[in-house]
Amino acid sequence: MAEMQQIVLARHCDGPPVPEDFALEALPLPEPKDGQFRLAHVWNSVDPGTRSRLSGGDSYAAALPLGKPVDGFSVGVVEASRHPDYPDGTKVFCAAGWRTHSIQSGRGFIGKVPDVPVPLSAWIGVLGVPGLTAWFGLKETARFREGDRVLVTSAAGPVGATAGQLAKAWGAAQVVGIAGSDEKCRWLTETAGFDAAINYKTAPDLNDAIHAAFPEGVDVLFDNVGNAMVNRVLPQMAMNGRICISGQVADYNVPPEKRTGITHTAPFITHRINMQGLVVFDFIKGFPAALADMAGMLASGKLQAKEDRFDGIAAMPEAFCGLFRGENFGRRVVKVG
Amino acid sequence: MAEMQQIVLARHCDGPPVPEDFALEALPLPEPKDGQFRLAHVWNSVDPGTRSRLSGGDSYAAALPLGKPVDGFSVGVVEASRHPDYPDGTKVFCAAGWRTHSIQSGRGFIGKVPDVPVPLSAWIGVLGVPGLTAWFGLKETARFREGDRVLVTSAAGPVGATAGQLAKAWGAAQVVGIAGSDEKCRWLTETAGFDAAINYKTAPDLNDAIHAAFPEGVDVLFDNVGNAMVNRVLPQMAMNGRICISGQVADYNVPPEKRTGITHTAPFITHRINMQGLVVFDFIKGFPAALADMAGMLASGKLQAKEDRFDGIAAMPEAFCGLFRGENFGRRVVKVG
Repeated sequence: MAEMQQIVLARHCDGPPVPEDFALEALPLPEPKDGQFRLAHVWNSVDPGTRSRLSGGDSYAAALPLGKPVDGFSVGVVEASRHPDYPDGTKVFCAAGWRTHSIQSGRGFIGKVPDVPVPLSAWIGVLGVPGLTAWFGLKETARFREGDRVLVTSAAGPVGATAGQLAKAWGAAQVVGIAGSDEKCRWLTETAGFDAAINYKTAPDLNDAIHAAFPEGVDVLFDNVGNAMVNRVLPQMAMNGRICISGQVADYNVPPEKRTGITHTAPFITHRINMQGLVVFDFIKGFPAALADMAGMLASGKLQAKEDRFDGIAAMPEAFCGLFRGENFGRRVVKVG
Repeated sequence: MAEMQQIVLARHCDGPPVPEDFALEALPLPEPKDGQFRLAHVWNSVDPGTRSRLSGGDSYAAALPLGKPVDGFSVGVVEASRHPDYPDGTKVFCAAGWRTHSIQSGRGFIGKVPDVPVPLSAWIGVLGVPGLTAWFGLKETARFREGDRVLVTSAAGPVGATAGQLAKAWGAAQVVGIAGSDEKCRWLTETAGFDAAINYKTAPDLNDAIHAAFPEGVDVLFDNVGNAMVNRVLPQMAMNGRICISGQVADYNVPPEKRTGITHTAPFITHRINMQGLVVFDFIKGFPAALADMAGMLASGKLQAKEDRFDGIAAMPEAFCGLFRGENFGRRVVKVG
């Protein structure tokens, strides 16, 4: 009998996730009904934001029940179709979780992969939610303006790397990334075109390094890290500076009462700082245009997308857990078919 | 020989200000030069935001040097004029500090008192910076929209009371104030037209009280208190909620490293919260229209302005220090001439 596999939540995470929080299951291959199709996943993603659903209790997103497949994005190929718009062989990206196969009806966040010469996995990376988060976070949430001086944190991650490159492409006066290894910093400056990169693990004083890079202050902080980083940069924001809260990877594993607090709030008044977070699906009407633009940039080499590839669905828990140890260099995608 | 008096900073404040931080001085009455006039102050204000200049060190605003008169707003009458646009007898409001007289040239933040039947002291209160902060903070910083549910903190203060009344006048679905006494709460609901008021000193659980008042969440938090209040309300903000940081009276006396930190930052992403502070002088072009509108509301009784009056310039230090003990009920103004 044909089978599929999936990774489910075996117990709620307490602190940083560990592989034992998850379990691999085999199930009979599901059959689509009328108006449905089966997607054979080729690539699945692991996403830091998923962590917020894994704590149980009153975590901010609706908690994932135990025994359910974990959230993630997927790109794959339609098979056994009973849906007129998605014939067998159609390539599709969607939010389908840590599974090898899923039944889809064409509703929700789902799209056909356009015919553009880019790797299939890009559609859950730079052309998926991470890239779109960078695009709309920079353009809409941070209200990026030509000439802005931009600081990006977790800059070698897929959101940060894209945000920095888009800022350069859109006319930033300066783009600096913060990352956790010399190798990542080299990639940011030599491949991704950042003006400079700061290794936060080896900088003698990170505040000094930021000040040296931005003597006139930071116009846009594009933050993927969380409270401690926001609090660190706030005193170095320029007048009318904007903070985009794109992700909070350092805070997801910590209950709110134990998180670092933002204390440097005087600049909100003195420097008229604006701080806002985003959920990229608010901008879904703009996705096609943004994706067309970014796909063209990627195909022509104007946008660099680093991937960190894993093989086999069984590797997904470890790939996910490593995100919180800063191990990923680029978008973590897992080949599952 | 004719004299004037002024209050100067005698030593830098450490924690909450005390009267001993200030000194009363007598000086010869200054004579205006060509293009200047002397203003005989009638009313001076004490302003919580002034505290941020009194610490010395790297306080966020430029520190006030010892021996200099303390900042404040004044309204008075022109005398000994050598300025063609300000003949003797003209009533003027300006930022002139804790003095009985000052020499003015007509530049900077200064204006002639329009002929409207309101008390002269209103021009350094509800028709001065506090009222304008409420107006522009609500309209521009919080981007108030008709139908918003609005929570105002330090609501019996001059900024908060005005913000709440403007929100009601502009079509808020609900306006609730937080204040520190039953008397203040009664004034808010019975005189100022707030829908409800919460006494934070006697509420069994302030979070519960806020939740009971806003079961569907807070659209606009108009905060005059600081980090602890922002952190408390953040988990109760509605989707797309806006936080206007208007003042931080609870934080001015505390060095940044000892302030309460904002830890509840997840709603910035999940609820797309926007937080911004303001300095009202950014909106100076809009002052005449806003003042004309508010003066009309005040004259017709549509806007209530509570004052907390002191007599004599020597009372200014005590009037100021009491602001940080929550003693003021309404705008603190001091009759100095």
